[in-house]
Parts: sequence; structure tokens; C-alpha cells
Amino acid sequence: MELAIQPSDVRAAAERIRPLARRTPLVRSAGFDAEAGARVFFKCENFQKGGAFKIRGAANLILSLPPAALARGVVAYSSGNHAQAVAIAAGHVGAQATIVMPRDAPRSKMESTRAYGGLIITYDRATESREAIADRIQKDTAATLVPPFDHPMIMAGQGTAALELLDEAGPLDAVITPVGGGGLLSGCATIAKELEPAIRVFGGEPEGANDTFLSLMAGERIAVQPNTIADGLRVPKPGVLTFPIVQRLVERVALVTDDEIRATVRFLLLRLKILVEPSGAAGAAAVLFHKLPRELRTIGVVLSGGNIDFEDLTRYAPPVTQT
Amino acid sequence: MELAIQPSDVRAAAERIRPLARRTPLVRSAGFDAEAGARVFFKCENFQKGGAFKIRGAANLILSLPPAALARGVVAYSSGNHAQAVAIAAGHVGAQATIVMPRDAPRSKMESTRAYGGLIITYDRATESREAIADRIQKDTAATLVPPFDHPMIMAGQGTAALELLDEAGPLDAVITPVGGGGLLSGCATIAKELEPAIRVFGGEPEGANDTFLSLMAGERIAVQPNTIADGLRVPKPGVLTFPIVQRLVERVALVTDDEIRATVRFLLLRLKILVEPSGAAGAAAVLFHKLPRELRTIGVVLSGGNIDFEDLTRYAPPVTQT
Repeated sequence: MELAIQPSDVRAAAERIRPLARRTPLVRSAGFDAEAGARVFFKCENFQKGGAFKIRGAANLILSLPPAALARGVVAYSSGNHAQAVAIAAGHVGAQATIVMPRDAPRSKMESTRAYGGLIITYDRATESREAIADRIQKDTAATLVPPFDHPMIMAGQGTAALELLDEAGPLDAVITPVGGGGLLSGCATIAKELEPAIRVFGGEPEGANDTFLSLMAGERIAVQPNTIADGLRVPKPGVLTFPIVQRLVERVALVTDDEIRATVRFLLLRLKILVEPSGAAGAAAVLFHKLPRELRTIGVVLSGGNIDFEDLTRYAPPVTQT
Repeated sequence: MELAIQPSDVRAAAERIRPLARRTPLVRSAGFDAEAGARVFFKCENFQKGGAFKIRGAANLILSLPPAALARGVVAYSSGNHAQAVAIAAGHVGAQATIVMPRDAPRSKMESTRAYGGLIITYDRATESREAIADRIQKDTAATLVPPFDHPMIMAGQGTAALELLDEAGPLDAVITPVGGGGLLSGCATIAKELEPAIRVFGGEPEGANDTFLSLMAGERIAVQPNTIADGLRVPKPGVLTFPIVQRLVERVALVTDDEIRATVRFLLLRLKILVEPSGAAGAAAVLFHKLPRELRTIGVVLSGGNIDFEDLTRYAPPVTQT
């Protein structure tokens, strides 16, 4: 089967999104390396515009739309980071963005989406279908749907994170990204395997949203009921377009518990002094808790976002120990 | 009166500490600039080795000691960041560091100091004098005292933060640092005024530890009883050596409240995704809350450290607002 994107699509995306997406820094930590037993290169997408990697994909799709389409606006459904990214990219080209968000999305993500000019329509996660709502808006307005992951332009855009990572870090044994719908992972795997054919690509996925893990085992797309603190990775099923690439290019998806994610968020915060949201730390958690092959000496880790409410963060206190 | 350090001392320090101190990144934030009404360049000493600028001064002094002195070890008293810095610098040259710390110092700072090989001796802040304890250790062991701020080598070392800041940011209207004992401020003012004679230098000081503010008003060193969340700035009185430089080169000390410091810590955390401790945010708070002259267009801000316990951080939740 033909894969949805090729490495050339990621390179084209890198050119297209240059005016909008930041080239985020690569960060090292001797303390993390010591715990992980490997040399780790963190690609800090928490410092990305909008606070997450999502601007890469959204900008790639939206900046490729013709003026007539932009005039009709764009629509997206998202629990948060994709929403902000669509609002930013649409605002950049003067298009109206309508965002369908669950009523219980983190407040900070809603506020930022609004601040960037996005029009928010909320829905009840339990009783309503965001796809149906987005579909209706799309029919009413003829706006272009900007899907969160299952679209070649989105996948190619997300891959630019790995393009920059490998360009700066040089040859690596492995690269790992968080896995939600697989947009980031498939895009990064596509370009990483071209740049360094011997590189090993992994995903980090919460145990409570292990759809990609199970799907790889089954050899077909399996649906789950997500239950994890990593709100950005609460995707029930891998994408139609992303999954074949993950199957072909990704060695394995490593599962991490919510406690491991919390501990990783704390480590990155207290030791590296950077704020990473739970979803953004799933890959790092897999490395910190030794879920990857031991022989890996150098690992690129995409920290995919840093958007979190203060109140949520305060709940990630370490388990009480005797003093 | 002759000032304790000259710009050439800061340049010499930069050479001396190169093997040990990091050249920390300069960070920008469109969101902070919009709130502050100025273009702000953050010198991120929270990413410094040991999590604070203190390694600059400690390394400058310790790396200048002759082998015979190093063999007798070093001793320091500190509520935290200076302690870690002395432990790191001493460890680097194989010297024993003994650190006198208050019993209620942040746990993370104690643990790090120990992890770096420092021997900790605790005292009761209310009933004992840390100077007296350090003095006794010094007499018993003939160790070299590494004072937290009031020493030319310490002041010159801290000034290297501004040297790097101005080197990278280019000409600025102003620079501001937090003020505790004045080591960082006096060192930074010394080099900044040489590099750019027209630059205006400010300090950011908590209202609850306003000794330097009051001293500048009085024209002499005034003592206060510090009471602020900014534990690193709880210094009762400006230094004998630092104060004349502050008097000569610093335009004004801006006072900030603990609430303003908390809000700034949250802003830096949630918007810039970086962890800065309360003491480290005093300069940024003065800028964010418009305590500096309105006409300043470009401001260099030293974020002096990022060491904070998770439990302390969770206490900095924003005031409850209606939703």
C-alpha cells in the first residue's frame, strides 16, 4: 500500500511553515542522561508557538489553501493544542477559525484559542460527537476541515520536528515521540528513516490510551476507551493514514503509566526547569523509565507541548515520602 | 572611594569560569513583551549549572585559590543556591566544601548540595548565627570562606551574567537583576556601564526585604528584618563592598510585592514554560508590573535561578476568580 506521505512532503512542509513555526531549541540534561542511561536530546516543542508542535501541521495545511478556501474559513475539533494551532495559523492568513472543543478542555487551552481569534463551540464529550458537529459547520459554511492528525498535510507538517531535531543533534540511535492519533509519530518516522535509515523509531503511549500499541499487536486499527491524564493523547483509534506508516516504520510503541508521566513532568520541571504537559512527556517517560531497548546510546525525544493549567499541575505532587 | 571591582575583573572572571559555568540562553516572549510594554531579553540563569547564577561567583573565587588553600577546603553559609554553587565548584577542583545552611532551607536545595558532595551543617535561623558557625569552622579547619556576595571575586563572577547578556542582546536601554546582598547587581552594573555607558541599571527587590532600597534612600547601609517568599533575597543589609557600587551605578531599586512575584513566577511558568524561583523573578516582576520608567524600550532581565520545591510551587496558585 502506498504511504500517505513521503520524506519530500516533510521537506516541503519545512519550507512552507517557516514564516509561522519556530525552530525550537534542543536541550540536554546531564541529570536526565544519568537516570536514563543514554544521551538524550530533547526537542522542546513546549517552546513552540502556541505551546505545542501542532502549529507545524496546522500551518502546513492552512498555508497551502487557495484564497477562495481561506475566505470560507477553517474548522477543527480538538481538545486543545490543535485548536490553538489552527487559530494561530488561520489568524496569520486572515481566515476565520471555528473550533469545536469539549466543554471540559483545560481552561488555559480554551482561553488561548480565543485569544488567538478562534471562535469556540463547545460540546459534551459524553453525549455529543465532535465529528458530527464539525461536519455540520463544514456543510453550513463550506469551511475547510483541518483534522487533528489524519491528513497528509498535517502529518508532513508534524514531521518537521524530527527534521530539525536530527539536523541539529546529528546521527542518533533512536527517536521517540508521544503517540495520540499518530500524526507526529508518522511524520517524524517518515523523515527520520530517510535521513538515517538505521535509526530506530519509537512511540510513547499512555497505558490508558493504548490504541496504537494494541493496533500494532493486532495488525489492524483497534479502538479503546481512553482514560489517562495525558489529555492530548486521548484518541480512541489510530488514523487511517497514520497507522500504515507507524506499522511500516515504527519499531514499537512503549507504554507508560500516568504515574510515570507525572514523575517525568516533575523531573523536567524541577531538574530541567521546563514545563511540559503530560501528553508532551509520554516519550520522555518511556526513556526515563527504561521502556526502550537498553543498547540505545543516543536518543532524540520530542517534548511535544507545554500547555497545562496551574491547578492541574499542582495535582502532580510527588507521592508523600517520610522525611 | 575606590570601588571593589572594575570591569576588567568581570572579564577576567569570564575567562576563569568558562570550564565550569554555562553560557545560558537568552529567551524572548511576545506575550511578556505585550504585558510589559517593552522588548525584554531574559537571561535564563535558571538553566545555569546548579540552577542559579551563583556558580559564576563561587567558581571565580574557588578556581583562583592556590592548591594549598584548596587542600584545606572551603566553607560557606547560604540558604541554598550559593551552597550548591560552592559544592559544585569545590567538587570540580577536588576540594571539600562545608556548607552552613538554615534548617528550614528548601529541601531541594539541601539535597542538591549534598548530591554535589557538600557537607551540610544546619543551624536554627532564629537562635543561631550562621556567620559565627562558619567562623568557627574556618578557625578549626583553616578552610577558605566563600562569602555569598560581599567579596570582589564573587561580585566579579556574578557580573559575567550581564557580560553575556549584553554580548548577545546588543545595545539595551536598561538591565535589571534581583537584589539580595547586591553581588549580582553590583557585578552586572560594573560591566554593563562599561559596555554601554548610557545603559540604565535597576534592581528588583521584594518589599519585605527592602534593605537596598532603604539604604539608597538613606545614603548608608540600613538593616531590615526580611520577610518575603523570595528566600534567596532574605538578606538583612547590603554588603560593605557591593553597596558603594550599587550607589554609584544603579539608578534605582524597584520594589515588588510577594503577590507580584508569585504572579510573575506563574507567568514565566505557564506562558514561557520555564521554571523560575521567586527570588529569580524579582527583576522580571518589576518589569511586568511596570515599576520601571515607561520610556524604556529594550530591557535585559536576569532570571537568576530556578530552584524551588514542588510543594512550594503549588502554593503559588492564582487567586480564585469567578468562572
